[in-house]
This record gives sequence, structure tokens and C-alpha cells, in this order.
Amino acid sequence: MNGAERTIDTLLRRGVDTCFTNPGTSEMHFVAALDRTPAMRSVLALFEGVASGAADGYGRIAGRPAVTLLHLGPGMANGLANLHNARRARTPVVNVVGEHAVAHRAFDPPLATDIEGLARPMSGWVGTVTSADGLAATVDAAVDAAVGPPGTVATVIVPADLSWGEAGEELPAAPAAGGRPRGSGSDTTGSGSTGAHGPGHGGAVLQFPATSPMGDVVAALRSGEPTAIVVGGRACNGPLLHRAAQVAAACGATLLAETFPARLARGAGIPAPDRLAYLAELAQLQMAGLRHLVLVDAPTPVSFFAYPGIPSVLVPDGCALHVLAGPADDLGSALDELAIGLGVAADAFAPVAAPARPDRPSGALTAQTVAAAIGAVLPEGAIVSDESNTCGIHIPGATAGCPPHDWLTLTGGAIGQGLPVATGAAIAAPGRRVLCLEADGSAMYTIQSLWTQAREGLDVTTVVLDNHAYGILAFELSRVGAGTPGPIASSMLDLDRPELDFVALATGMGVPACRATSAEELVTVLEKAMAEPGPSLIQVPVPRTL
Amino acid sequence: MNGAERTIDTLLRRGVDTCFTNPGTSEMHFVAALDRTPAMRSVLALFEGVASGAADGYGRIAGRPAVTLLHLGPGMANGLANLHNARRARTPVVNVVGEHAVAHRAFDPPLATDIEGLARPMSGWVGTVTSADGLAATVDAAVDAAVGPPGTVATVIVPADLSWGEAGEELPAAPAAGGRPRGSGSDTTGSGSTGAHGPGHGGAVLQFPATSPMGDVVAALRSGEPTAIVVGGRACNGPLLHRAAQVAAACGATLLAETFPARLARGAGIPAPDRLAYLAELAQLQMAGLRHLVLVDAPTPVSFFAYPGIPSVLVPDGCALHVLAGPADDLGSALDELAIGLGVAADAFAPVAAPARPDRPSGALTAQTVAAAIGAVLPEGAIVSDESNTCGIHIPGATAGCPPHDWLTLTGGAIGQGLPVATGAAIAAPGRRVLCLEADGSAMYTIQSLWTQAREGLDVTTVVLDNHAYGILAFELSRVGAGTPGPIASSMLDLDRPELDFVALATGMGVPACRATSAEELVTVLEKAMAEPGPSLIQVPVPRTL
Repeated sequence: MNGAERTIDTLLRRGVDTCFTNPGTSEMHFVAALDRTPAMRSVLALFEGVASGAADGYGRIAGRPAVTLLHLGPGMANGLANLHNARRARTPVVNVVGEHAVAHRAFDPPLATDIEGLARPMSGWVGTVTSADGLAATVDAAVDAAVGPPGTVATVIVPADLSWGEAGEELPAAPAAGGRPRGSGSDTTGSGSTGAHGPGHGGAVLQFPATSPMGDVVAALRSGEPTAIVVGGRACNGPLLHRAAQVAAACGATLLAETFPARLARGAGIPAPDRLAYLAELAQLQMAGLRHLVLVDAPTPVSFFAYPGIPSVLVPDGCALHVLAGPADDLGSALDELAIGLGVAADAFAPVAAPARPDRPSGALTAQTVAAAIGAVLPEGAIVSDESNTCGIHIPGATAGCPPHDWLTLTGGAIGQGLPVATGAAIAAPGRRVLCLEADGSAMYTIQSLWTQAREGLDVTTVVLDNHAYGILAFELSRVGAGTPGPIASSMLDLDRPELDFVALATGMGVPACRATSAEELVTVLEKAMAEPGPSLIQVPVPRTL
Repeated sequence: MNGAERTIDTLLRRGVDTCFTNPGTSEMHFVAALDRTPAMRSVLALFEGVASGAADGYGRIAGRPAVTLLHLGPGMANGLANLHNARRARTPVVNVVGEHAVAHRAFDPPLATDIEGLARPMSGWVGTVTSADGLAATVDAAVDAAVGPPGTVATVIVPADLSWGEAGEELPAAPAAGGRPRGSGSDTTGSGSTGAHGPGHGGAVLQFPATSPMGDVVAALRSGEPTAIVVGGRACNGPLLHRAAQVAAACGATLLAETFPARLARGAGIPAPDRLAYLAELAQLQMAGLRHLVLVDAPTPVSFFAYPGIPSVLVPDGCALHVLAGPADDLGSALDELAIGLGVAADAFAPVAAPARPDRPSGALTAQTVAAAIGAVLPEGAIVSDESNTCGIHIPGATAGCPPHDWLTLTGGAIGQGLPVATGAAIAAPGRRVLCLEADGSAMYTIQSLWTQAREGLDVTTVVLDNHAYGILAFELSRVGAGTPGPIASSMLDLDRPELDFVALATGMGVPACRATSAEELVTVLEKAMAEPGPSLIQVPVPRTL
């Protein structure tokens, strides 16, 4: 068994069975190995940003890592922006990056780069395989690091001669009751970082402060003072969200969610925390008057960007910050302990969203009627990949009472996430409908995703909300005090010259597409798209909202 | 004047007057400053890889840097692959990357990353502005570093508070006869690297060995033994190429060119060195029997990739390597000194390409007839951005005797270069026709370039050579000894499921497009496209060549 085969075998033994890739010459032995290993599903992307974003979407839904197979430094570089989003989402992702053969690397051939240096800023763990004997252990350690907690991006660099050469032995089978010891037998150069602040991230001091003593959290929730619980990360869905909602209800605390959750469970019968607003001023309003903020796997609320004269930390003056649990903690135990401390029973009341759908809208397409159309038809079990930005501000409200669904957000702010995440989510959840809400500017970053959706026959319905602009930037330009845009500034923010024809773009990549011209028509084509297998795209012109 | 305005003012004072950008919130003060500074041409790209590749194409043709304006770490990351190509081309490029305000960065907001860490592997120089007073000097030092020699990628990181805050004074005017002292008055953290091996590139030992003593080079060329001169970099065009050809002819030496020149002058009346082949075996044949190899701003010939059993360095056994000049040297003086040492007069004979065009082809579209069609119509002064890969192997031969033109190649091997480089070249050279030769797989990496071409009305004719495959990889799979591809491996190399409709894709971005179905038709539509102002795209199905 050569090194490429051993790599894939080791990944499969750890349950990593989906590979998003755009390989090159240095990865050809992996391609050959994939040929002999049908248990690893291989999905080709036309650009590495699609592969890395798909791995993020897959991991958010499957709860376990996919692997990307990337070509040298440039392939890694092309995947970095969506790996940044994945790292912020604490999604488990394993990257396998080919490197030149060790002896060849010294001659500085044209494609040589510092792959570890490129990987480090967006990875929580980076390791280079340095011997055949150490290969399996290094790959295994990468899976450990990726899974966490916290989940993170782990990058394994495999020189070509170690992928084509005979590999060392497989690792002993994992003990039934738990993981195997990390890095045993490894001669890797890998450096682990299990904290949320990976290497190259030295400035991070506040986002996840240390956990508070339990007594302190209990006292805050018993204080009777205005208090909010902010759920984030793993507390945004399933029993943990429910438990947090029970505690908040029992204590009269407000339940909030972090601004950009990796995966938020929503819909009828599910607790419905208000998400903290992206706009600093609105988030400050949401928290105005609070005396206690209890963070449950959520970061300290800070402004997305800095603005002249606006504070970075949005927690009000006089409000104490309490951290129940952070990304690396046993969240279930912490919530249970808290509930016991507060006397909140396992079957205590938790307020949940009531079933409700907007009426089917009619008339002109506006941000409101588009939101209503989506709320009117969103199917049960849908996965919504939301990169609708300013165009989509009314959609969360319009879908709050829809049948249960999951909502995936732009965790790291690097646009171009929506289409790839939708692609990976669809592969993780066959049988569920994925709805991708895309702003026009963001859609163009990784538009190549549509081809993979067509090739794999994925049940993804993409709605491109087309306001012919980077709407957020026109708004931000005024917020940062940069004045009213003149012709040159406007031309840097507008996308209307020429207009983008997403129907043509989708058709060009094999995805059936149409344009909606009224709210009624949007409802009709949405229903049709959601009912049919395979991908489709609907271009929806909307006026600017901000 | 705020920091953003001072940045742009400093760039303009150094002759940097073209900005390729996709800005974000942290760059809004730059956008506002651009509004007030029409002397800086602002070109919007839908993806940063387009902006960075356009800066490469611009620099190769203009001979001076353009600036990119990029949004934080993810914007930088998206531009890295084409910055890698630019660095390998030794193209002068200045990146201005926005960073969070200094105080805000400490709170680890979602978009925070290690921008310096991301920039370093693809930059020869990286600096972060740390004070208002030091801003102009840091920007100035970046321009110095970018210009070289050797040209390189220089990255300046500007925190938002330093772009919106009042800036320090402008620098004193440069002395008329030369540059200003580097970094004077700067409190930058910038680290210079004027060598070809920038930071993060420590493994490089052989590519540009030390310059040989002149007597040694003269002796080699006088030896009467089989000798070749290899031109690269700046020696691939203009008087330097001519001088090298004179020397080679006088000494009976073969004239070769590096495999992937940044800009190779070609056509009737111009010396026509054979380019060293991409395929190691063919390059070895080209150099078989040589006793001396004289490198003129060219790297040591090494294999692009490593293969089991094939050496990395392709110089034959028993062939001595002589380095006349490297990327940082005064190449003109070195060539003049060599010519004097050999007694080669200023008006000595240099063999040049004879005028010749292929006959207009007819019949089926094949790699040969497509090449003939291009050779039949290529206009004088054309700039060819060549990313045609395996489909285009016959095109250089078919165009060798065309009227003089420039040929830009994939210097760093990171695909997705052709369309952006064509875009930037067209902006650098209004009035010249740019022909972009694109392989289908590579085209999809940065297909967003077409929108910028449409928006700016650029005279770019794109020919997509569509063989429905990553043709090079199917070939490489066998070369690395990975066996015959089965269904899974084939599916990782094939692009025919679904087929890409480049006519639809181009139309969707505002570029007129058509498909050629025969060689005659290709000639007709090529002539029409080249004669009309503005961009166009021709999709040309071709059989696989390898």
C-alpha cells in the first residue's frame, strides 16, 4: 500500500468518507488511490474555494469532517477564504495538500511555495508528513485535531514521494470506547492547537474569555436583574438549545444567539433566540439595560468592523460577562449542571416558535415579498445556506414559524461561502432540500459551485437576490464616515454595468434556471424547484434595501 | 489628508496610477479617496484572483506596478494564487490590504486573520503601517521593493484607523536622477527581500545560482564545445534579447528560452529562441550533448514536477553551468561586457524569425487547425496571454512568423492566470489587441474576469480551447506511474459531465460570444472578433491532444 492509499485508508477508518477536490500532478497518486477506494466519495470542484466551502457545509450538517484534496500552495491558497469561514464556524475539516517530492522541493520548481505558512493562518492544526512510517499517525492526528472539541481546520501536507512510496503500517484499531492516543508513533512536524485561537492568531484575547465559576453564573441568573443568555456554536441546535431555552425561561432571562451561528435550528416547535444584529448599533439596542450576559459557547459580542467613535465591544457598560462554557468545554455537562443549580427540571417549559407561514405574496418583488415567498414554501427539513446579506434581511422573520429547518450563516464574513456550503450540505444530507440564498456580489465569488451541483445531481435550489450592487458596502461607506459616494466610488460598489445574467451563468454550468418577475411567479417557481430533484437557480431582482 | 488619501497620493507620485480592486468595509476610506483622485484608475473585479492576476498582466506589459486594493485576510487569500504567478514572473505588483483598526483587531472579530502570515509566502516584501507619520514612507518602500530589480510582489497592510485618521506629511520629492533612500523616516515593520527567494521560501538553493566570473563565461562561449545560451526574465525581449542572439550566433551557440517567460517577444524580425519544454524528457532532449549552458536571467532548468526515477535538474551530465546574470543584476551591462569580451560588434548579425503565416485552415477543429487559424490572423502588436496548456501545443509554432507580438506565459503554474492577465494587459496597452488562449479547466478558475473586460470595454479576444478535460492531468497520471485511470479517477480529470457552455457564461457577464464548429468558421469569427472594439469569446471544441 502506498502513502496515498494509506492516507485514504486511515481517513476511512476514522469515518471520513467524502473528499472534495481539485487535484493536480502532485496528487495523481491520490487520484489513483481514490480509483481503488470507492468507499471514499470523490467530488470534483472547478475551483478550490468550492471544495473547501463544501467541506465546511458538509461538516456543519454531518457533524464529522470531510477531507479536501488540494494541489500544492496555490490550491491551498484558493481554498483559504472558505477555510477561514470553516475555522470560524469551528467546523471539522481535514485538508490533504500535496507537496513536491522532498528532494525536488529543494530546487525551487515553479509551483513551490511555503505551504505550511499558507495553511497556518486558517488552520487550527498543520502537519507535514516526513516519513512513510509516520504517515498514518499524522493523518490520524489531523482527524483528532479537526474533530476537537472545538472542531477546527486541520491541514496535512503530503510530499509526492511519500504518497507514491510504500507506506508504513496502519495504526492499531481504535479502542472501542474512545479515541486512540494522539500522535502516537508520529514523527510529524505537526503542531496542535486545540484552542479557538490557532497559530497565527496571536491577537485574540477576548473572544472566548475563560469560563466563569458555576456559582457565579447561577447567581447571575438568580439575581432578578436584566439578564440574557447568548447561545452560540453547539448550543444553537438540538437538546443543548432546548436546555438553554428552559434555563432562560425559568430565570426570566432573554435568550439570544450569536450573530453568525454555524448551524442554527429554527422553525415551529424549536426555541427561537433572537440573533444579535450584525449592525453594532442594533446589537447595542438588543443588549441595552442588561446587567448580566451569560455566554454559552458564544463569543463576546464585538462589532464586526471598527467605526470611528463606536466601541469594539458591544456589551453595555455595567453589564457583567459570565461564561458558562467555551468551544473546548463539555457543553452538555455545563448546561446540565447549571440547570440543576437553578432547579430547572429536565421537562421544564421552553418557549418555542409557533407554526406560522406568511401568506403567499403577490405584486412587485421587494425584500419583503421575496421573504414572504420563501416563508410560504420552505419545506420541512430544509437546510438554508444564507448569504443573502442586505437583500435578505426580512427572510429570517418570514421563516421563523416554518416547519423545522437548519440555517447556516456566513460565520467568518468571507463572502463566497453560500453556494459551496449549500453544495456540501446537500451531499451530507441526501433527501433534504437545500435552499441557497445568495446575494449577487457574493454569488460571483464561487459561482463554479453550480457545476458540481449539476454533476452530482444535488437537491439545491439557489435563489440569487440581485440588487446589482455590493449593497452592504454602499451602506458601510456612509457608516465609516467616508462621505457620499461620487461616480468613482459608486462604480466600485455597483454591479449594474454590465448586469449579471445568472440564468445564463447557471445554464452554462448545467443548472436549470429562470428569472422571477413578480412575487406570484417567485412562489410558483420556488415550489416547482423545491419539488423536483436536482439543482436549479432562480434569479430574483430586488431593490436595494439600505 | 487622511491615510487612505496619503497612500494613493504616494502611489501616484511614484507613477502607480492603476488600481485593481475588490474592496470591503475596512477599505471604504480608500474607495472614498479614489473618488477624489481620478488620476488613479480604479478597476473593479468580482473576485480578488482577477484583481491580482490583472495586476500581473498590467505589470508585465507596462513595466511598472499596478496596485491592488484587497479586503483583509480573505481578500488577500483569494488573490494569492495569481500573486504566486506574478512573483514567479518577477512582475512588480503593490498590494494594499486593509486591516481592522488596531484597537479592534485585539478583539478577534470574525474577519480577523494573520494577514502578514498570508502575504509572506507570495510576497517578496511585506510591511504593516504602524503610524500616521510612517505611512508614506512604508508605501514608498513597497514601491521600491516591487520595482526591484528584481521585480516582486510587495504587500502593504493598512489598519482602518490609519486610513481614516489624519496622515503624516508627504515624502520629499524624489531626486531627479534616481530613487529616494529606501525606508527613510519609516517606522514600518516591513521586511525587505530583494533576492528572488523571498521570505517563506527558504528551500530555494539552486534556481538562481551565483553569477559566474565573466572570464569563465567568455571561455565557455569560445570553447567550440556544444553550448547553449538560455534567456529568461528581462532577456526575453527588446534589445537584451537581440544582444543575446547576436552573441549566440557569433559563437555558434544555441539560443534557448526558459520554459515559462513572463513576456517573450516573438514574430517576424525578432530572434526566436526555442523555449525549453515543459516535459522533462523533451527538455532533456533539447539539452542533450551540451557541454556548457549559459544562463542569462534564466533559472537552472529543473523539472516542473518530480517523477519517480527522473532527475529534478535537467542539465545533462558533464554540462557546465555558467551564470551571466541573475534577476537582481544589471543585465544590459553584463551582456555588453560579454559581447565586448567576445568581440561581438553592436551591429553583429542576429538570426531572426522570417515572416510567415500558416494557410487559412479548413475542415475539422483539431489542435493543428486551431493553431493554424490563430497563426493566420494574429494581428501585429498582439499580446497573447497563453493558458492553453495541452490544447495549445501547436500554437507557438504556428505563430512564430506572425507580425511582432508579445507572449505571456503561466510563470508559476497556478492555473486561472490567463483571463486576469489578459485583462490587465489590455488596460496597460490600449490600442493593442489581446488574445487570451484559455484551456477550459483553467478558464473556470477566474471566469469572473470576463465581467471586468465587459465593464471596461477591453479589446480582449478570448479563445476557450475546450477538450472537456484537465488534459494535462490525464497525461500526468500515467507519467507519475499511477496507472491507467478507472472510472473514479477519470471523473476527477474529465469536465464533460455536464459540459461547460462558455458562450452562455460569457453572455451572462456581458461579453459577446460564439462557438466555432469548423476551422473555416474559426478563422472568420477570429478575424471579426479581433477587428471589433471590446471583448469577445469564442468557444472552440478540440479533441484531446495527449
